[in-house]
Amino acid sequence: MTRPEASGFTETSLVDYIQSRLPPSPPWLRVPIGDDAAVVEPPRGELEVLTTDTLVEGVHFDFAFCDPADVGVKALAVNLSDLASMGAEPRLALLSLSVPAAMGRDRLEPLLDAALASAADHRVAVVGGNVTASPGPLVITMAAAGAVRPRRALLRSGGRAGDDLYVSGTIGAGAAGLGLLRNGRRPADADDAECIGRYRRPEPRVRLGLLLGRTRTASACIDLSDGLADGVRRLAQGSGTGAALQADAIPIHPGARRYFRERGLDPVAASIAGGDDYELLFSVPAKRRRALASVVKLARGLAVTRIGSLTKDQRVVLRRGESEEPLPEGFRHF
Amino acid sequence: MTRPEASGFTETSLVDYIQSRLPPSPPWLRVPIGDDAAVVEPPRGELEVLTTDTLVEGVHFDFAFCDPADVGVKALAVNLSDLASMGAEPRLALLSLSVPAAMGRDRLEPLLDAALASAADHRVAVVGGNVTASPGPLVITMAAAGAVRPRRALLRSGGRAGDDLYVSGTIGAGAAGLGLLRNGRRPADADDAECIGRYRRPEPRVRLGLLLGRTRTASACIDLSDGLADGVRRLAQGSGTGAALQADAIPIHPGARRYFRERGLDPVAASIAGGDDYELLFSVPAKRRRALASVVKLARGLAVTRIGSLTKDQRVVLRRGESEEPLPEGFRHF
Repeated sequence: MTRPEASGFTETSLVDYIQSRLPPSPPWLRVPIGDDAAVVEPPRGELEVLTTDTLVEGVHFDFAFCDPADVGVKALAVNLSDLASMGAEPRLALLSLSVPAAMGRDRLEPLLDAALASAADHRVAVVGGNVTASPGPLVITMAAAGAVRPRRALLRSGGRAGDDLYVSGTIGAGAAGLGLLRNGRRPADADDAECIGRYRRPEPRVRLGLLLGRTRTASACIDLSDGLADGVRRLAQGSGTGAALQADAIPIHPGARRYFRERGLDPVAASIAGGDDYELLFSVPAKRRRALASVVKLARGLAVTRIGSLTKDQRVVLRRGESEEPLPEGFRHF
Repeated sequence: MTRPEASGFTETSLVDYIQSRLPPSPPWLRVPIGDDAAVVEPPRGELEVLTTDTLVEGVHFDFAFCDPADVGVKALAVNLSDLASMGAEPRLALLSLSVPAAMGRDRLEPLLDAALASAADHRVAVVGGNVTASPGPLVITMAAAGAVRPRRALLRSGGRAGDDLYVSGTIGAGAAGLGLLRNGRRPADADDAECIGRYRRPEPRVRLGLLLGRTRTASACIDLSDGLADGVRRLAQGSGTGAALQADAIPIHPGARRYFRERGLDPVAASIAGGDDYELLFSVPAKRRRALASVVKLARGLAVTRIGSLTKDQRVVLRRGESEEPLPEGFRHF
């Protein structure tokens, strides 16, 4: 609607810019970006999965330690992570930007380029775009749609007491990466650099989510955008169970372990409370363990770790050896 | 992702709040708001139409002269207007809010209540919600999806030279209403009040769009969120034609006519340049005039006025009696 002249983009020129950088439309995209709305053929024989997520400058990112390309990639990644947690295959996205007057094309173009390149990598068609002026921060909202076969969607509510809990990848890297960036410290080594990379450009676990859903391996699944503690609590609540995590089983990223130790914090408590880990947490019935082994083989080297189980007891606890404590609270954005 | 404590809502409590106010889910909504994403059955035998639009405080609205309920209704209306212009039947929406710390529940609840009530009126299922903190203005982004029968979508590109151009309702009321509000003037009469109402709560022309598409009456259609001049230019460009409007045929709202005259402005030029008229502009081939008459009968009293035609000549002009001038530029938000 609006033309934020200061950014050098009008709405029309933004849509033109996006159009000029899009790969050829997939055959199901009947009317691509450029009309009042897009027209698409729905996925045949499948259900649609829909989500939306927003990144706000000063809340979810800061240009002091993220470059525009990071922000563009992350805006898509946080949405794809939601689709992954449902077991859906991403299909399309809509992109809305509210742009401060001070943000010129020199920062807006790399942001768009990176978002569009990432969309192309994930075979996501960007079917709509919208730009407005912002008298405040840069705000990016994306909506994304994917497809899932009937009865293959992964919900939070499918877990049963006795199911094992697994997490993909490692935990704590996102929060440690943000901490390192805020402290303005240069990465000391590859572990630090990886934490920073994971904060700046989380990798949505799209392939793992798809495999877990298609093979009916997971009974429930959620993504860890708000941290492991928050995810466990929501999955257990959704499934009407409690949960028990084994502290020493939780795969803390080595860079995060060091980062939190150096600050006198317990690495387990800090890592599971921290947000920005876009890993998947999922429950697997004991009888599906063999299926999980097959999924892991197909997951292209992404580790999957058993960290506990869902319990009849409705509490959500962290076990350290013989002792037991309530799970810490989830993450709150700065 | 974030919990804007100051507003009194956490993301969880916002989703809870929305859930508690939603009507029962339609049967095609398999997984409603509350999981990582929604799961829906796509419309059977139809195509999907997708759009997104954003309202930014201080750009598209100001709480000095809009109440929170107006903003909630308008956030949905601007999206439904895009669906209407495609001839689509609205089905679902996703709602993203970035909320300043100073905005309490006392303003957020009426905004949500009004948006949800309006969605229910339009039989739109709100399938996803997302709230973040905003260090700046309130930003509301909605994405909406509708359904349209194959070959019934109304595009900007379907017009042909010789087709008549029509507009629904009246023009100028949105811009005049905004002007009246900015001047802090109380409405002098019913005309003023109507202009203000049209600015605050535009009515998306959903039924008209549907009728125009289903009956194949319109060859092209666009909504007038950025004004009539802008819409005519885009429709002509999309269709590869020019356009000629008859100044004296344009249905200027009586309140707008007076408002612009009192300010020494030409009511026609000001009204067609002004934005915030969420009317439909559409082209109709001469041989479909009778079909249009049937559509108008079904349009529940919404007037439709012939204002000109698409031309082989690629210029876009406004005719006043014997003279001809280029169409003024479209609307720019303040």
